[in-house]
Amino acid sequence: MALTIVATGQATAKEPIEPILPVQNVDRAQVELGKKLYFDPRLSKSGFISCNSCHNLSMGGTDNLKTSIGHKWQQGPINSPTVLNSSMNLAQFWDGRAKDLKEQAAGPIANPGEMASTHTLAIDILRSIPGYVTEFKRVFDTDEIDIDQVTQAIAEFEKTLVTPGSRFDQWLLGDKAAITAKEKAGYKLFKDSGCVACHSGPAVGGNSFQKMGVIEPYETTSPVEGRSAVTGKDADRFKFKVPTLRNVELTYPYFHDGEAATLKEAVDVMGRLQLGKNFSDEENAQIVAFLKTLTGEQPSFPMPILQPSTDKTPAPQPFGS
Amino acid sequence: MALTIVATGQATAKEPIEPILPVQNVDRAQVELGKKLYFDPRLSKSGFISCNSCHNLSMGGTDNLKTSIGHKWQQGPINSPTVLNSSMNLAQFWDGRAKDLKEQAAGPIANPGEMASTHTLAIDILRSIPGYVTEFKRVFDTDEIDIDQVTQAIAEFEKTLVTPGSRFDQWLLGDKAAITAKEKAGYKLFKDSGCVACHSGPAVGGNSFQKMGVIEPYETTSPVEGRSAVTGKDADRFKFKVPTLRNVELTYPYFHDGEAATLKEAVDVMGRLQLGKNFSDEENAQIVAFLKTLTGEQPSFPMPILQPSTDKTPAPQPFGS
Repeated sequence: MALTIVATGQATAKEPIEPILPVQNVDRAQVELGKKLYFDPRLSKSGFISCNSCHNLSMGGTDNLKTSIGHKWQQGPINSPTVLNSSMNLAQFWDGRAKDLKEQAAGPIANPGEMASTHTLAIDILRSIPGYVTEFKRVFDTDEIDIDQVTQAIAEFEKTLVTPGSRFDQWLLGDKAAITAKEKAGYKLFKDSGCVACHSGPAVGGNSFQKMGVIEPYETTSPVEGRSAVTGKDADRFKFKVPTLRNVELTYPYFHDGEAATLKEAVDVMGRLQLGKNFSDEENAQIVAFLKTLTGEQPSFPMPILQPSTDKTPAPQPFGS
Repeated sequence: MALTIVATGQATAKEPIEPILPVQNVDRAQVELGKKLYFDPRLSKSGFISCNSCHNLSMGGTDNLKTSIGHKWQQGPINSPTVLNSSMNLAQFWDGRAKDLKEQAAGPIANPGEMASTHTLAIDILRSIPGYVTEFKRVFDTDEIDIDQVTQAIAEFEKTLVTPGSRFDQWLLGDKAAITAKEKAGYKLFKDSGCVACHSGPAVGGNSFQKMGVIEPYETTSPVEGRSAVTGKDADRFKFKVPTLRNVELTYPYFHDGEAATLKEAVDVMGRLQLGKNFSDEENAQIVAFLKTLTGEQPSFPMPILQPSTDKTPAPQPFGS
């Protein structure tokens, strides 16, 4: 028989959400290189789209569009998830088709609907720029830049994009005045209603795949089918990675199709479809108030200055075929 | 009869190029607000294009494209001039149709081929965002945000985008080792050949309109006719504002149509068409070496964090009509 230790007070109670920790254990040189690559539109065919275009660090690591804009203004199939705290995800992309940030970073560069380049072209461009050649040499001790190093550096930079210090985390860490009574009531509802079944841990999500539409089916015109595209299993249709709710105030619009414009709408739909609950206006407002306490300190750093191209650098091709 | 004081040494000789001074006399509160607006894509209809999209401060204040990409990937008619040191221009745009930075800033927001918004929509969006309402109130002491304040703040930020500290300026200021013999030879050629007739002053240009194609006509498929579009005078056809050569290493490709991919090509074309000179390969290389000494310290500041939209903020319209 197991002994159960009963918590004697709120302060020591085990909460389903854990604080975000400041970043540690990253390779600083890789981070600095990755930051430049993250902002460098020369990784796209057009020379116009960088990682930051759709995962804009001025805007919660998203583009705040329903679905993203790709090469030649193609309409993307899915809502850009935030890059903030994405290192905590169990896998990357809504359907989890990349196992980690490094694997993810390789995708958009070569996706014809996104940055529309190729890994070969991207590497040719970087190799033609002495500033990059020198920095890759210093960081990776190599004379040959390759896509593995590129995605490794971008991923290392992305690991630094965590957002500690939210009011909710201050409360978790013992500052009882950090959130209001209304926000606390929202958190209680969030727990009691079962939201925490999926939205838990430091990222308040990101740690499981779940079906969109458990109690009622989710109606959407989006053709995206989610996890089944990866596993090939019919049982995984409409399963998506549960998104983080950290900084959710900044990452509108919501859901994989971006069809929920507001947090109010998102909470309402989630309540009904996932939990079979119709939140009253007051309950909804309390939960929304709680969710806004999850906005953390946004990563802050000087805009990277990119090394110029040279006469040998392949020119961007924004127009034409 | 006037007395002429003859300079006795290189250090005191009057040079046609003057050093860039660090920024001073700006309104810091306006600058901080203007910086946010400069990076805010919500000033565009799509929610995707900001001032920084085409005047990218990671890339010498340009997009490094022949001509720019506008709303729905429209191909712009002209090469994006650098925003760096643009406060020193006698007027703004290649044809000088805006008298100053403030007037310029209003243009792209409402240009259907660029950001494709309207001033009314842009203001409605800003008014719906409490973070902006508070900041405009603090900066302009007003409850009503208007386009005049928006463009005033953007212009004030742009005034800070100067690039002192180039190697050439170090040399001008007395550090004789700051440039090499080859670079100095290039500067001498630049003066002796007559380039300084138009490219002079602190910005090494930007202070006159000149005809593109003085000795020989400039051949281009670009339909842009330059200054005559503003003055209505036939004599002003193909006259353009002389671009600054500050940071020209970063602001490729060159000319109003972006057709010169490299500095080598730009120097060759300018020599032949404007001065009737065929620079040898060695002379060309010397001038190019000199031009690269004009790269100054790039403006460096933390990426601005934008205040989130609210449930009342008009949504971006990237697709559809």
